[in-house]
Amino acid sequence: MRRTVFYVSESTGITAETMGHSLLSQFEALDFQQVYMPHINTEARAHALVQRMQEAFDRDGARPIVFATMLDDRIRQVLRDGNCFYMELFEGFIEPLAVELGMAPSRQSGRSHAITKPSSYTKRIEAINFAMSNDDGIRPDNFDHADVVLIGVSRSGKTPTCLYLAMHYGLRSANYPLTEEDFDRDDVPPEVWASRRKLFALTIDPQRLQLIREERRPGSDYASLARCQLDTKRAQAIYRRLDVPVLNTTSQSIEEISSHIVKAIRNKID
Amino acid sequence: MRRTVFYVSESTGITAETMGHSLLSQFEALDFQQVYMPHINTEARAHALVQRMQEAFDRDGARPIVFATMLDDRIRQVLRDGNCFYMELFEGFIEPLAVELGMAPSRQSGRSHAITKPSSYTKRIEAINFAMSNDDGIRPDNFDHADVVLIGVSRSGKTPTCLYLAMHYGLRSANYPLTEEDFDRDDVPPEVWASRRKLFALTIDPQRLQLIREERRPGSDYASLARCQLDTKRAQAIYRRLDVPVLNTTSQSIEEISSHIVKAIRNKID
Repeated sequence: MRRTVFYVSESTGITAETMGHSLLSQFEALDFQQVYMPHINTEARAHALVQRMQEAFDRDGARPIVFATMLDDRIRQVLRDGNCFYMELFEGFIEPLAVELGMAPSRQSGRSHAITKPSSYTKRIEAINFAMSNDDGIRPDNFDHADVVLIGVSRSGKTPTCLYLAMHYGLRSANYPLTEEDFDRDDVPPEVWASRRKLFALTIDPQRLQLIREERRPGSDYASLARCQLDTKRAQAIYRRLDVPVLNTTSQSIEEISSHIVKAIRNKID
Repeated sequence: MRRTVFYVSESTGITAETMGHSLLSQFEALDFQQVYMPHINTEARAHALVQRMQEAFDRDGARPIVFATMLDDRIRQVLRDGNCFYMELFEGFIEPLAVELGMAPSRQSGRSHAITKPSSYTKRIEAINFAMSNDDGIRPDNFDHADVVLIGVSRSGKTPTCLYLAMHYGLRSANYPLTEEDFDRDDVPPEVWASRRKLFALTIDPQRLQLIREERRPGSDYASLARCQLDTKRAQAIYRRLDVPVLNTTSQSIEEISSHIVKAIRNKID
């Protein structure tokens, strides 16, 4: 049985989506049709959404699930009255927090993903630009200015991980691809050695690597299993010599890899 | 008065951080010291964190705020017993959802940001790679394969927005920078006209643009206010002829801009 899920918010809807998605991940066996509904910031828009809820009910034969982060009481009430299973995600948290902090909540929507602190927003955008212009080892002399440097063989996940680290955590991230040249002399350039303290190595199972490379250059030597096995093995030898943390990207998402890196950089707790 | 905030999770901590950050945005006047604590997945790590809570209490003179998404009862209890104001973010939602869905929750942590659906994860990674290789109008012939094409003057926010759309929503995003050449003939190449249905124009106030360009090339004609005014004015004329949606990036974050674009693409509701 399919259930429709609406992520609803007066502003971007990112919090409703993240939190709702997490809650649904506890019920993976079910089939959810997810609909993203930001900017429901007038009663008229709420009424239009209630109409869509009814359509979902008629289609699915079950009421839709609504994950919402509404701050306006009137708009929230319109949604609650719709034919849906309504979960207000802020409810139950804001009032106790207000008591604990000794302060009334602003009740303003859209603050979480707005530019409330220009300096930290600018830092994030600069980190993204840094990651863009320091991808693929273009400027190893720039590693000095990086917060994080990733090292790995071609297609091991360096680029998307760097971009995630920059975008989500504002970390200036660069990466260095291990090439034939490095393998032949079994060493990396001095700039990589010099950035050892901020270096994280990515590894990947050869079978998985083969699949990814095959997508890129079908039938090439580059994509052969033998080459993938050799590359990852030689990379491991270099990682051991560098003595840096190694993260396996075979079955971990960029979010998971990034959380390990950020934890290692910011808060060591073991 | 400063308060320390811990975002705690057995896995990536992204949900705890997103939701906690949203809740705190209701209390912007306060000074929060935010600490990111993923991978608290053993009782030993929870005890170490309780120790850090105590240090925060001693330093701030007030108990720290903890936003947590714990699924293991024993680990959660260790944290609850610490000297903190503990908010369990999943509590109150999972049980009612289980009743509504007629299914027991898996109680497995870390599913939300894991690769649970390889096909949709691969689609996101491909979208990121697409955005990387279609930045800055490098390949207008590729606009055919894009879900979204952004157009704007240099430094109007095209690149970070494209990357966010790819990373967060899995949208294949390309962008086209308006240059002197376009302004001189007061037109854009046929590839841009051909992708009109998926085109979004970015605009920015000239004063803000000047500040950003000044960072990049201080004292240049490129960064002068006159040039910024002329570029944005000429861009507006082209946008009107193209008749495409125009989004202002002056005070909107990449998250806010992206939510407007995704809404326009996926769900029209007005």
